[in-house]
Amino acid sequence: MKNPQPFSEQENPIGVFDSGVGGLSILKQLVQDFPEESFVYLGDTARLPYGTKSKETIKNYAQKNIDYLIKNYNIKACLIACNSASTIVDLLESPVPIFDVIKPGASEALAVLKNSQKNIGLWATQATVDSKAYEIEIHRLNPQLNVEMIGCPTLVSLVEEGFNEHPLLPVAFNYYMGLFKNEIDVLILGCTHFPIFKKILAKHLDFKIHLIDSASGVSLKLKEFLQINSNNKDTFVKILLTDTTDKFEGFAKRLLTDDMTHFKNTTIDSIDL
Amino acid sequence: MKNPQPFSEQENPIGVFDSGVGGLSILKQLVQDFPEESFVYLGDTARLPYGTKSKETIKNYAQKNIDYLIKNYNIKACLIACNSASTIVDLLESPVPIFDVIKPGASEALAVLKNSQKNIGLWATQATVDSKAYEIEIHRLNPQLNVEMIGCPTLVSLVEEGFNEHPLLPVAFNYYMGLFKNEIDVLILGCTHFPIFKKILAKHLDFKIHLIDSASGVSLKLKEFLQINSNNKDTFVKILLTDTTDKFEGFAKRLLTDDMTHFKNTTIDSIDL
Repeated sequence: MKNPQPFSEQENPIGVFDSGVGGLSILKQLVQDFPEESFVYLGDTARLPYGTKSKETIKNYAQKNIDYLIKNYNIKACLIACNSASTIVDLLESPVPIFDVIKPGASEALAVLKNSQKNIGLWATQATVDSKAYEIEIHRLNPQLNVEMIGCPTLVSLVEEGFNEHPLLPVAFNYYMGLFKNEIDVLILGCTHFPIFKKILAKHLDFKIHLIDSASGVSLKLKEFLQINSNNKDTFVKILLTDTTDKFEGFAKRLLTDDMTHFKNTTIDSIDL
Repeated sequence: MKNPQPFSEQENPIGVFDSGVGGLSILKQLVQDFPEESFVYLGDTARLPYGTKSKETIKNYAQKNIDYLIKNYNIKACLIACNSASTIVDLLESPVPIFDVIKPGASEALAVLKNSQKNIGLWATQATVDSKAYEIEIHRLNPQLNVEMIGCPTLVSLVEEGFNEHPLLPVAFNYYMGLFKNEIDVLILGCTHFPIFKKILAKHLDFKIHLIDSASGVSLKLKEFLQINSNNKDTFVKILLTDTTDKFEGFAKRLLTDDMTHFKNTTIDSIDL
């Protein structure tokens, strides 16, 4: 969390943004954990993916998203539900606290490691791997651990193409697992698309490797903040996309529909940015 | 070609644009075929890919690219070296002729079909498939032909990740070939990334299916235009990218290096757009 501070306007929504609709996997967890809060989710579908782009370009896009959410929705906090954009959180300017997904993911990976274990694996976009953000955070917490990072852009593509049912997913799982030099004890799913296949990957790996995604860790961090900034009024969830196609909307609905009760007051709108 | 007309300033460069660096496969053919011409290539790497986005967004980006090339380089013609953007060529405004890659690809597919053959397959991005642009053009030329179109976003990802050497490419070839209902006689590689694996795909298919990419067809179309608009002065090739990363530059160099003699006066620069 950058620049934490109590905020007076407690009824304001929490802003969440991602390069696309993958971050809805995190929004889903938050809506479930904080039913008394309102959320505005901005999916920058016109510019996705961020994960193949340069640090400067990602920073530029992320700053625009925050500025938009503050100006138009007066958000009380902003969560970056995108690993690639979380790598540049320290470069962003904001009058409200910003939460990223990397620090919670790294903490949780350490928390589940057993005594003799020291090999943490990461699957992420190339931008997240190149930033070394997970490695830096994990080594800050424990310099003795071994961190291996693999860029897996094709896993993103497979999820976008076939959700968790693409026939090539198991082949890709084997391929990317085979790129680790050591036997991995914990695997961080460092991209918001990856929690979508978490269950089938766990089964594919015979439940032998502990899988971490950011959603639960982020939720814990936000809980601390909301203890002094909670809302109790009528809540809403608004989803804004900078580009809409049947694919994006279908993907979004598919991500949210297995528990739509939490999303009954949800709207999906287009915006220009 | 839209709005063809002779142009007086023959020494001006030809503009070429693509969502990224894949279109360099077409630039390469053009530089080889027209050594007496200058080229300015704009790769919109900050917004790539176009192939997953909506028609409106693709149109918006494509128009910006053309306007930029006209304003800053006074181009005498513009080639859209991107299948997804070629699908909306009729919506674009330009004072100079615009060439697309779909019409030449469709014509060439028909030209190589043997007498009894009628099944044309297409591998492309989802935007190109959804536009039905190839099907419409092929049926305009011959309504009797059967056109099967498959969206293959993961092939784009595999090429970006491992060029023509990604270990998952052969598995993906089998998967996408298996999606055709009929036995395909000719396969159009309807995305600028796909010519990169043309040779290994041909071998993978035991040279049994005729493979078409747009480069040679586009070159023929441009030849007609250049017969009355040729240049004879000092030539240059300029590559402009709206975002630069090691990955994009590496990809670009890899695409161009097997015959760098044609690219000796080439520069790669960044621009804001």
